[in-house]
Amino acid sequence: MQKIISLSKRRGFIFPSSEIYGGFASCYDYGPLGVELKNNIKKQWWIFMVQENENIVGLDASILMSPKVWQASGHLTAGFADLLVECKKCHSRFRADYMEEGKFIGEGKTKEKNQCPLCGGKEFTKARQFNLMMKTFVGPVEDDASVSYLRAETCQGIYVNYKNVKDSMRLNIPFGIAQIGKAFRNEITPGNFIFRMREFEQMEMQFFVSPNNKEKIFNSWKEKRINWYLSLGIKKENLRFREHKKNELAHYAKRAVDIEYKFPWGWGEIEGIHDRGDWDLSNHSKYSGEDFNYIDPFSKKKFIPNIIETSAGVDRAFLALLCDSYQEIKGGRTKTTKSAKEAEIFLKLDKKIAPIKAAVLPLVKNNLEIVKKAREVYQALKPYFMCQYDKISSIGRRYRRQDEIGTPICLTIDFESLMHNDLTIRDRDTMKQERVKVKNLISYLREKLNEQS
Amino acid sequence: MQKIISLSKRRGFIFPSSEIYGGFASCYDYGPLGVELKNNIKKQWWIFMVQENENIVGLDASILMSPKVWQASGHLTAGFADLLVECKKCHSRFRADYMEEGKFIGEGKTKEKNQCPLCGGKEFTKARQFNLMMKTFVGPVEDDASVSYLRAETCQGIYVNYKNVKDSMRLNIPFGIAQIGKAFRNEITPGNFIFRMREFEQMEMQFFVSPNNKEKIFNSWKEKRINWYLSLGIKKENLRFREHKKNELAHYAKRAVDIEYKFPWGWGEIEGIHDRGDWDLSNHSKYSGEDFNYIDPFSKKKFIPNIIETSAGVDRAFLALLCDSYQEIKGGRTKTTKSAKEAEIFLKLDKKIAPIKAAVLPLVKNNLEIVKKAREVYQALKPYFMCQYDKISSIGRRYRRQDEIGTPICLTIDFESLMHNDLTIRDRDTMKQERVKVKNLISYLREKLNEQS
Repeated sequence: MQKIISLSKRRGFIFPSSEIYGGFASCYDYGPLGVELKNNIKKQWWIFMVQENENIVGLDASILMSPKVWQASGHLTAGFADLLVECKKCHSRFRADYMEEGKFIGEGKTKEKNQCPLCGGKEFTKARQFNLMMKTFVGPVEDDASVSYLRAETCQGIYVNYKNVKDSMRLNIPFGIAQIGKAFRNEITPGNFIFRMREFEQMEMQFFVSPNNKEKIFNSWKEKRINWYLSLGIKKENLRFREHKKNELAHYAKRAVDIEYKFPWGWGEIEGIHDRGDWDLSNHSKYSGEDFNYIDPFSKKKFIPNIIETSAGVDRAFLALLCDSYQEIKGGRTKTTKSAKEAEIFLKLDKKIAPIKAAVLPLVKNNLEIVKKAREVYQALKPYFMCQYDKISSIGRRYRRQDEIGTPICLTIDFESLMHNDLTIRDRDTMKQERVKVKNLISYLREKLNEQS
Repeated sequence: MQKIISLSKRRGFIFPSSEIYGGFASCYDYGPLGVELKNNIKKQWWIFMVQENENIVGLDASILMSPKVWQASGHLTAGFADLLVECKKCHSRFRADYMEEGKFIGEGKTKEKNQCPLCGGKEFTKARQFNLMMKTFVGPVEDDASVSYLRAETCQGIYVNYKNVKDSMRLNIPFGIAQIGKAFRNEITPGNFIFRMREFEQMEMQFFVSPNNKEKIFNSWKEKRINWYLSLGIKKENLRFREHKKNELAHYAKRAVDIEYKFPWGWGEIEGIHDRGDWDLSNHSKYSGEDFNYIDPFSKKKFIPNIIETSAGVDRAFLALLCDSYQEIKGGRTKTTKSAKEAEIFLKLDKKIAPIKAAVLPLVKNNLEIVKKAREVYQALKPYFMCQYDKISSIGRRYRRQDEIGTPICLTIDFESLMHNDLTIRDRDTMKQERVKVKNLISYLREKLNEQS
């Protein structure tokens, strides 16, 4: 894990937030390569969920919502609050269950049971509920009337827009609404790098169904969603389902299955598929007075739509993909260069999500003709693909620099290129090289990268 | 304007946030077509700023940052706070300058000078400063130590990452860092639909330069940025520059030029180009103790980089594009159908940003062969393009439905298609039709839509 955190910072994937001020609250910032990888993950999810599904449409609701939303959802009343104990000495609060187990991920100075990990105090209040939602004040006057909350889950924005979306897009059940966006939770114990953060990004899809066939739909989404991770190249043995036991279920859930990834520290949830029953629309109906009954156009039966939810974490998918693609090859993959004795880092990222699609490399930097041609190739490609141009240091070292950030294709312009107007294409995974004419390059790369817009 | 708000809701571009609870705090949600249009605007900006510029890289910093960032930036001390007066009767606060002018956009029940628009009170406190930043509490204990703020501008996330980005990407001055993300301001007077919201999205690029040639760089960004709006099809006569006078400049600015769009209610800023001097890096250096001096590799001269900023609002660009492309054609564009007597709405959105790229329409819905072929075409296209399939109502009405949401291309499968394996392509703007073979369709559309990935 430490190697991945170190690579992330060194190569511009992830930096600690506000690092010059000593960091802040387990927040992280995505650097130049990180933002490309993250955007590519989001783009693939959007293509898979929205673009390729006729009965799923997108949404982008605001982070700030009416506090009434959170009353109706149960977030302000119960269920979304951890049981906390407070240290009587330093007044810090900790999760009661962790305290009993002596488990303090990301916080602990001590692993002793029933001892405050911050000051060492041993006396605690009784366990109490603490709200995980972040409060803020909206409007010119900071008083009770202006209290609002940063959303703790993006799905609520979907529920309150259910009718507007259904009517404007003339949708019939079953249909889905998909959304990508930030959510905030005042986690007591953030940690494990970007796995558990207080500010994080979700990719959620709410599928509105009849209660009659929801079992089948639930199982089909379970399969589709795990296949999505497989399609991005995650190894099968590092993924599994975990069905929640009855006593684990959240207040809104009838059934829940996690998709877990085998992180360096153990299995962790990267996505949840939930049967939320009619909890959400019934409650919003009760609190808002809106009628969310649906009348089936064929059977004329009336019902409150049930919801099957697929809720994925962008940051967790990012971390799983980074862990899964990270390889260290002792002695290097080739024996031809001096530095091959060092361990070579190699990110086997799927070409669909790799931050840089192609690197353009002049074989030598002191031949003006070669440099000129390389610049022409780079200029021609960059309107179409995210590319890098690199002329610094030996060609072997430049290949390895691109391997380390997962660039699937290196294009080398050499002496032969000047005669035949072609170049060498080097594949990251096979290291095989082939020659392609410059004039066929864009269609060749489109084919090879299987680009979807 | 009312027509645009109405179309936005009816066709799924924009809904009022939390509408079932009576709306909330001038927030808006982007519906199924709105999110596509918005994402396309952001994608075009990213291609133009990051992908096509070798010396600009991306970033995605968190919304929550260390409060020290806002001390250093001056947001907590001065300059970012409006002068407010408080009504002595109801304790509501209002902008002092608006109060004097009797101007209360989006709030006012009265237009009388020096009268409270909420309760009618006539006695006020002296004008005071009120902070525009939204406060929240981060961590398990809600106390002074846990106070943080939602960022009021995305650029601060760029400044604090300046060194990490420069080092990890091995950049030399001049270079830029670009970022798209949410920002929050406790505006006293939000209004004009999505023009001034308390939660909004920015597209900002900070260009780090030597103080010696910044004038030239400033002017070149001014031109590039207005050209970007022109490239998305905004009419030249609806755009203008406005140079700020000395007494208008924000506390950090040496020079500021707005790009303004002629909205239905008048000219309004959609982007600002600012010379921020060395204000940002000098202050962050002072507060954090980091050394941000840059040594020029050629001249060996040492200086604090100056910053030229281009700061655009996603929501404002969205609104400008919607206003600019909206056309109502009295009597309709064609005289061939019955409903042609009604006014036809027609969104002349650039094909790069249109939410739906192509609509697949079977000429009739009761011919199984035609429907089957239309389904095949739709299935083949949707991995590549955002498409809609529509078989409901007459073909003329379906064309108009697509015109109304700005779909550049309609594909009609008719009886001839069954014989020749081709279809009719109808261009939104010229209404010209041509026949294309199904097997050539993807490359034809790629060419026509000029897709960039």
